[in-house]
Amino acid sequence: MPIVETIVVELADRSYEVQVGVGVLAEVGPAAAEVAPAGRAVIITDSNVRPLYAEPVSRSLVSAGLRVEVLDFPAGEEHKDLATYGDVINRLLGLSPPIDRATLIVALGGGVVGDLAGFVAATALRGLEFIIVPTTLLADVDASVGGKTAVDAPAGKNLIGAFHQPRAVVIDAAVLKTLPPAELINGLAECVKHAVIRDRSLLDFIERQAPALLSAEAEMLAKLIARNVAIKAAVVAGDEREAGERAHLNFGHTLGHAIEAAGGYGRVRHGQAVALGMVAACRIAAGRGLITADEERRVREVLSALSLPVRFADLPDLPAEACEPGRLREIMAHDKKARGGVVRFVLPVGLGRAAIFDDVTGQEVLSAIEALSG
Amino acid sequence: MPIVETIVVELADRSYEVQVGVGVLAEVGPAAAEVAPAGRAVIITDSNVRPLYAEPVSRSLVSAGLRVEVLDFPAGEEHKDLATYGDVINRLLGLSPPIDRATLIVALGGGVVGDLAGFVAATALRGLEFIIVPTTLLADVDASVGGKTAVDAPAGKNLIGAFHQPRAVVIDAAVLKTLPPAELINGLAECVKHAVIRDRSLLDFIERQAPALLSAEAEMLAKLIARNVAIKAAVVAGDEREAGERAHLNFGHTLGHAIEAAGGYGRVRHGQAVALGMVAACRIAAGRGLITADEERRVREVLSALSLPVRFADLPDLPAEACEPGRLREIMAHDKKARGGVVRFVLPVGLGRAAIFDDVTGQEVLSAIEALSG
Repeated sequence: MPIVETIVVELADRSYEVQVGVGVLAEVGPAAAEVAPAGRAVIITDSNVRPLYAEPVSRSLVSAGLRVEVLDFPAGEEHKDLATYGDVINRLLGLSPPIDRATLIVALGGGVVGDLAGFVAATALRGLEFIIVPTTLLADVDASVGGKTAVDAPAGKNLIGAFHQPRAVVIDAAVLKTLPPAELINGLAECVKHAVIRDRSLLDFIERQAPALLSAEAEMLAKLIARNVAIKAAVVAGDEREAGERAHLNFGHTLGHAIEAAGGYGRVRHGQAVALGMVAACRIAAGRGLITADEERRVREVLSALSLPVRFADLPDLPAEACEPGRLREIMAHDKKARGGVVRFVLPVGLGRAAIFDDVTGQEVLSAIEALSG
Repeated sequence: MPIVETIVVELADRSYEVQVGVGVLAEVGPAAAEVAPAGRAVIITDSNVRPLYAEPVSRSLVSAGLRVEVLDFPAGEEHKDLATYGDVINRLLGLSPPIDRATLIVALGGGVVGDLAGFVAATALRGLEFIIVPTTLLADVDASVGGKTAVDAPAGKNLIGAFHQPRAVVIDAAVLKTLPPAELINGLAECVKHAVIRDRSLLDFIERQAPALLSAEAEMLAKLIARNVAIKAAVVAGDEREAGERAHLNFGHTLGHAIEAAGGYGRVRHGQAVALGMVAACRIAAGRGLITADEERRVREVLSALSLPVRFADLPDLPAEACEPGRLREIMAHDKKARGGVVRFVLPVGLGRAAIFDDVTGQEVLSAIEALSG
């Protein structure tokens, strides 16, 4: 099968390629062999993905001449914690013969796998090379580029981790057909985010192709993924350590994270929370005249067309705490990206551009949250 | 009190200063304030060091305008593990108000504290700035420069960690007077190592000043520390990620680590094991004509003058397994620095220079170990 597109993520000391295609999962071997000089790879995956894809990936790695071992851990966001990390890294370090610094880690799975396996790779023997083979749309367009690895802590999500760049990413759009529709929709929220902050023509594409995307047409998804990876790669390349414009990727996430935290992690999907966060941010932006009322409506409509929520009422199972303005504001003030208690908002400036605002008032935030309740 | 010397560790993207002096512990505040823009510092220390030095360090930080909190964990090598790391990082992340990315970590203590607190700093919120205030000679001359952080795993020492450079190191030679003599001797082994691989005149200094050093004369120790920090800084600056000549710092460590592992960690001191490793490496070097018999004897004599062992019999409590040649060779083959099972030895080439050898034969190693038994 042909590679549809290759995107280069340009980083100061180590650039890498993201391959996006249809049917490329079974061809990960050559990419891995290039970065595994010692000829040994350990696949880290979860209990959901292992029965689906560990075998074709292993086979491809073996064909490329690698010795392959597979470690898995129980699927689920609740296992993205230090206990599971400790269990996985100790099993990795206990392999016989022992791994060495030339051993390659292959993170095979969704965002939880990428984050946890990436953190294992970042810290085993003080850092092993790793490649990512994502299996969800959210991981394809978000977690696979940026070098963020992490596990959750009792005090909050992703609070323990490291920046650790992969050597390669291989994305197969064909695997998304096995993804539950709700998971596909989860990833589409991040695609809308990229469109709003960076690329108005991507918004046109998503609007036009919404039905094809929702029915997981592989070629269309591959195109979508390639464009989103390119956007994220460009943003990250300019700001590897998150000092400046990379913060634009937090569009929709300030309130989104607060909704997730207030609702209890796992009870609200990330993409749904981010969709509500984007609607609120657009409300604030429209109130400031940064976007027109038409543009604000357009964002809401594309989210709706993708079956994403635009009001709290669109999520009938949402716990009442997740809609409570006072609680949400308190959580936002404690966000790890807040500086000295100042909540920073990323707002669209027209569609396709964004900027960071430190001066969003409590009243603006409250009004935007109330609009979600309307 | 005057700063005796400042050594700059030159790194690609972030250099930092090591201040070595007498009585400087209580003056850490200004150095910390410079790198803690948010005005908040968290001291991480252990239960031995806290009652001795947490107060003067806190006072100095507070005087410099910082808000200060102290976290400690139980002293002892056996607590340098993932469980203690998890406990400390979760207490750090649970502080109220929550820490943010501008919070400074101050690692106050010996090697275990520096390694564990450094790993906490490397991974909390994906990386916080930290400074090191070491309180043992070993930490002064070894752990304080190089950016290595780690905890131990069931499979071996320092197998879980990250490279994370401090923003500053403040070394007070006066605190070493509270150090048990055995701990002081432990650190002197690394000083001999630096002398043999890089600086013959340092060997002269150590020979001449051995009695003053052993009685913990602060000014003499400050001079010793400054020279050793400068050597290590030069080596690390040339090779931050351990690809090349930094490996010279493993002189004495290949066999030394094996003796520690075979004897059971905590039963043999690191410095003692490294002393035996250096004697063995010098034996191999002398056998190859890389150093003269006189030079070999000189290294043994300086070690003896510092109360360090030069034969297994100098350590009456050493478990029999720690002297067993077959067991030691097996452990060396599994060392994380071994490549494809090839054991690499750092050997002196004359005194004051070293090189890496991949071709040391099993017979040479056996003979050298047997010489330790003689």
